Amino acid sequence: MKQVSFSLLATDGNARRGRIDTPRGDIQTPAFMPVGTAGTVKAMYPEQVRETGADILLGNTYHLMLRPGAERVASLGGLHTFMDWERPILTDSGGFQVMSLAKLRKLDEKGVTFRSHIDGSAHSLTPERSIEIQTLLDSDIIMQLDECISLPNETREMERAMELSLRWADRSKTAFNGQNNRALFGIVQGGDDLRLRAKSAAGLQSIGFDGYAVGGLAVGEPQAVMFEVLSDVCPLLPEDRPRYLMGVGKPDDILGGIERGIDMFDCVHPTRAGRHGHIYTRFGVINMKNARHKDDGRPVDEQSPNRNCRRFSRAYLHHLVKTEEILGAMILSQINLAYYQELTAGARAAIEAGSFSDFVETTRAGWAAGDLPPL
Amino acid sequence: MKQVSFSLLATDGNARRGRIDTPRGDIQTPAFMPVGTAGTVKAMYPEQVRETGADILLGNTYHLMLRPGAERVASLGGLHTFMDWERPILTDSGGFQVMSLAKLRKLDEKGVTFRSHIDGSAHSLTPERSIEIQTLLDSDIIMQLDECISLPNETREMERAMELSLRWADRSKTAFNGQNNRALFGIVQGGDDLRLRAKSAAGLQSIGFDGYAVGGLAVGEPQAVMFEVLSDVCPLLPEDRPRYLMGVGKPDDILGGIERGIDMFDCVHPTRAGRHGHIYTRFGVINMKNARHKDDGRPVDEQSPNRNCRRFSRAYLHHLVKTEEILGAMILSQINLAYYQELTAGARAAIEAGSFSDFVETTRAGWAAGDLPPL
Ligand SMILES: [Zn+2]
Ligand SMILES: [Zn+2]
Repeated sequence: MKQVSFSLLATDGNARRGRIDTPRGDIQTPAFMPVGTAGTVKAMYPEQVRETGADILLGNTYHLMLRPGAERVASLGGLHTFMDWERPILTDSGGFQVMSLAKLRKLDEKGVTFRSHIDGSAHSLTPERSIEIQTLLDSDIIMQLDECISLPNETREMERAMELSLRWADRSKTAFNGQNNRALFGIVQGGDDLRLRAKSAAGLQSIGFDGYAVGGLAVGEPQAVMFEVLSDVCPLLPEDRPRYLMGVGKPDDILGGIERGIDMFDCVHPTRAGRHGHIYTRFGVINMKNARHKDDGRPVDEQSPNRNCRRFSRAYLHHLVKTEEILGAMILSQINLAYYQELTAGARAAIEAGSFSDFVETTRAGWAAGDLPPL
Repeated sequence: MKQVSFSLLATDGNARRGRIDTPRGDIQTPAFMPVGTAGTVKAMYPEQVRETGADILLGNTYHLMLRPGAERVASLGGLHTFMDWERPILTDSGGFQVMSLAKLRKLDEKGVTFRSHIDGSAHSLTPERSIEIQTLLDSDIIMQLDECISLPNETREMERAMELSLRWADRSKTAFNGQNNRALFGIVQGGDDLRLRAKSAAGLQSIGFDGYAVGGLAVGEPQAVMFEVLSDVCPLLPEDRPRYLMGVGKPDDILGGIERGIDMFDCVHPTRAGRHGHIYTRFGVINMKNARHKDDGRPVDEQSPNRNCRRFSRAYLHHLVKTEEILGAMILSQINLAYYQELTAGARAAIEAGSFSDFVETTRAGWAAGDLPPL
């Protein structure tokens, strides 16, 4: 029997409250997955990530296949042991990063060959090799290799990439070979063309996956376009499988995704923004580099459930950011990840209570009201 | 009554086991003080520093006077509140960093004028201003301003700097004005000339300080020269005051300092070495960048009391160091600070037990034996 399963616990409009059971622990959905690119969520100990409320991390196949290498991770006991994170890990297929980071890429029917952005070494990734790497990493949720193109783009190009991704989906399913301790997710492609998206969704379901991702979004299009695609695609996906919006996003994108029926999200944004001096809170985004914080002895948010938002003054965080101290990156990454978890936990509770639209309205009103007035 | 006091609890040869009581908590000596240069021990939360066993931190007056500024720290509640460290803080006078970091320095009888290495802004530091800054920071142990010169150097130059430091010591004592909630330490100078060192030690004692530092060491001279100066100077210092060897050092320097009667140490070395991939353990120093660790699934030291030495594989730490992940700096800094505290805690227990020379021998034998054989 499949050891990874999804239970839909409640709905509120199109928003869904669910749970993914895995041998390594349950994932409460809607879930935000912090990104542990190269075997670490940047500037965070794994237990600190867990303490923010994260049930699952995302690992990047592209980075890990280059360093330290999938076979090496396997011989060291798998990615969970390697990074000391015992809970579930979802790995991407590597395809997206190959297209955005690698050099001298060459894509054909078989797969993609490329050179490492680190040392120029030659590598190839096929649907089969991607599954193999993710299995070596001991991933709990494996993604098919797909081709993700930027938007806007020509219909012919979107169709070509979607059709290729569908054939790769089929090969991925075969290569995955029904492993029952992990899940395999297909990825809906088709750009901003709803006919293509529908064809992709139908094609994937006839192959049959444990979950369905929406890929090829947050690649340059306006938020309205992304939301429109989600509104159209989600109803085409099976109710009894988790839905994952890849690489998204800012807090408002996540609320909008949940509103439209998405269960899972990942993004480097909270940690990257933290390293660059930006904080997400119920007041919206705060730029800690701004000189207005220089003499501000107030905490970021004295009512936050997150201790780091209460214990350090804005003046101190401003100082750490301006002096480029590592502790600044540590604290701001933690604050952002904790806020993302607070947001998804709030969404889960609201969906259960049937008050999700109130939750969205209140949350957005808080962001719109903005930060505390300056001292 | 003076609220900062020193109790000598036990001796073993010249090694001393003591305790400094302060309003913000006791400091068990011999003590190693981690350096929180700019209001943070780099890559460590304050509670993580405390968990390594540190009783006291060092703050750098030069860095803090430039950013965020002493008056600003004072208006924000002092350095302890600013960085969320409630226990004692010792601040240096700023003199050493002015000489090593600042630009366009000009030193005369009155003090030193210089330009910031950050933005070129003009500043001056006098014995009086240094005391004022350290008081604004709310330091628990304040250091006099002195002039620290490199070694080897000419006798005339060492004498000039020592005599100037002695006059500045006198002005510092006056400026300190007998504050009873903090301590003021004088600094013995005189280079590697024992006659000058003796004159400095005697001069300082006739002024009278709460503690005596040995400055002007670890400035380019061989370890043997440093040890010789310590062997000669320590007997000239009063038994009932703490003795602080400034800016030292590596673990072996610390053992040798304790052997000769030193009670307090500080150095950026453990955190800086950690950020550069070096780990200190009972096996000596280990270069985690070395390819021998690439496939080594063993922990750094499975018998270490420090969890970070047991939980992560050498292969993982090697990976973090090679990929320049912030978590690598975090873990390695923690491991090194914990080892320094383990070392000084071991020294304290050994002095109490009258077995300090055995402790030194065993510890040095462990370092000499080196790391585990490669896999
Ligand atoms: Zn993203
Ligand atoms: Zn040092």
